[in-house]
Amino acid sequence: MRTVVVGTNPRAGAIAAALGVPAAETAPAQADLVVVCVEEYARIPPLPDGADIVNLTSGTSGQAAGAANLFTGRYLDGALMAHPEHVGRPETVLVYSGSPEVFARNESQLARLGSATYLGPDAGTASLYDAAMLNFAWATLAGYLQTAALLTSAGVAARAFTPMLNEWLRTTVADVIDDYAGQIDAGSYPGEEEWLELDEPLMRDLITVTEQRGMDAALPKVVQALTARGIAAGRGAESFASLVEVIRGGGPGPIDRPATA
Amino acid sequence: MRTVVVGTNPRAGAIAAALGVPAAETAPAQADLVVVCVEEYARIPPLPDGADIVNLTSGTSGQAAGAANLFTGRYLDGALMAHPEHVGRPETVLVYSGSPEVFARNESQLARLGSATYLGPDAGTASLYDAAMLNFAWATLAGYLQTAALLTSAGVAARAFTPMLNEWLRTTVADVIDDYAGQIDAGSYPGEEEWLELDEPLMRDLITVTEQRGMDAALPKVVQALTARGIAAGRGAESFASLVEVIRGGGPGPIDRPATA
Repeated sequence: MRTVVVGTNPRAGAIAAALGVPAAETAPAQADLVVVCVEEYARIPPLPDGADIVNLTSGTSGQAAGAANLFTGRYLDGALMAHPEHVGRPETVLVYSGSPEVFARNESQLARLGSATYLGPDAGTASLYDAAMLNFAWATLAGYLQTAALLTSAGVAARAFTPMLNEWLRTTVADVIDDYAGQIDAGSYPGEEEWLELDEPLMRDLITVTEQRGMDAALPKVVQALTARGIAAGRGAESFASLVEVIRGGGPGPIDRPATA
Repeated sequence: MRTVVVGTNPRAGAIAAALGVPAAETAPAQADLVVVCVEEYARIPPLPDGADIVNLTSGTSGQAAGAANLFTGRYLDGALMAHPEHVGRPETVLVYSGSPEVFARNESQLARLGSATYLGPDAGTASLYDAAMLNFAWATLAGYLQTAALLTSAGVAARAFTPMLNEWLRTTVADVIDDYAGQIDAGSYPGEEEWLELDEPLMRDLITVTEQRGMDAALPKVVQALTARGIAAGRGAESFASLVEVIRGGGPGPIDRPATA
């Protein structure tokens, strides 16, 4: 079995290292498995006939569906939710969707990159997860940078407060997220411990503090605006998790359109 | 030593339970330590002369400074970074600032609420941490809700994907945050693994996917706009952490104004 990685960026290099195979700009004709990780879908080179294709390039669900049509029956789309340095650790999250045969044939090799979860035969599902998880990371990291801007402006080093923030994230915040998952599935958002009308004045205080220090308040303002819209929609006594309904807006909830991944 | 909690909300109730003392709307004259946790500073009732005051009411640094003036030499401001159900667990984060004597006299009692960190004599510092940490939680939780809206729209139950998201948050995302702390303190944001020009097209894809599903994209749009501003400022090849400079904007960095907490 001959495996190659197509791609020359740091991520492709980390994938090749974890698999113990070479990385290059193109794949030789005799390859059995080609793991693709290039900058964008448009840069995927011609690939050998017959080889299994596992594509870890970031893109949209539509791009993944297009690639699945190009490599019918032998295409698996994947999303690598990590920086290159995390590739190969057992806790690193990778999700795959597309050909079940390609996943089954290559599962043991793919397990060398991190935990491998197969999400189903629709090649677009992994990309949706990719976008959704990137969103989660970016929001969390942007929130961290906003918090860091505030605290460093008071003369505190980021390395001084970050261990406490991270500990809090791993315990309390992760617990709250777990609780919210149950509220979302139940479609019920009891505001017993915190509720939008309790949060909203504190959000306005945060905006004031931020602007008093001459800083950009766009991120806290979006959160406050979502909350104000939730209150205006009659959810003032419901938990922060009820904002999932505000975000859904006119779009599909889980009941309206159950399986369009 | 007589301790009482002033406040009748769930948070005050949880504090009183963890301390093993009563919670009420006012404090008796003979109290030695009054732990205050009301809805807002304006609702703090008259408190007994001479008692140590530990105020866990959420508010601004200015409000904390005002309260410190009212109870000179016996006022400790605190911030409880958790839901009521987390009060009393050793990993629950509480920060305090204000009278060092009040903290020293009551440290062993306060330790029953969770981990207690003293941040210095300025009563406003705890409130700044409070606002900064709330910002971090809200951004993370809003990001989670946005991600949940996307994935539930594809028919996936929140309880199905949330354990993976939380595991990812606790490991990979927390590692990235730790790395960013070093970058922020160094004022250097090497884009070796990810960089703004790599991220920004993926952010536009995320906005497209979100809007295609009829959902609100305000949160991903703010992140994309910050990133676009970073690129416009010449930081396209720097890491996402460089956005701390964009958020700081015209405001003080850690060098310009080192100690104004």
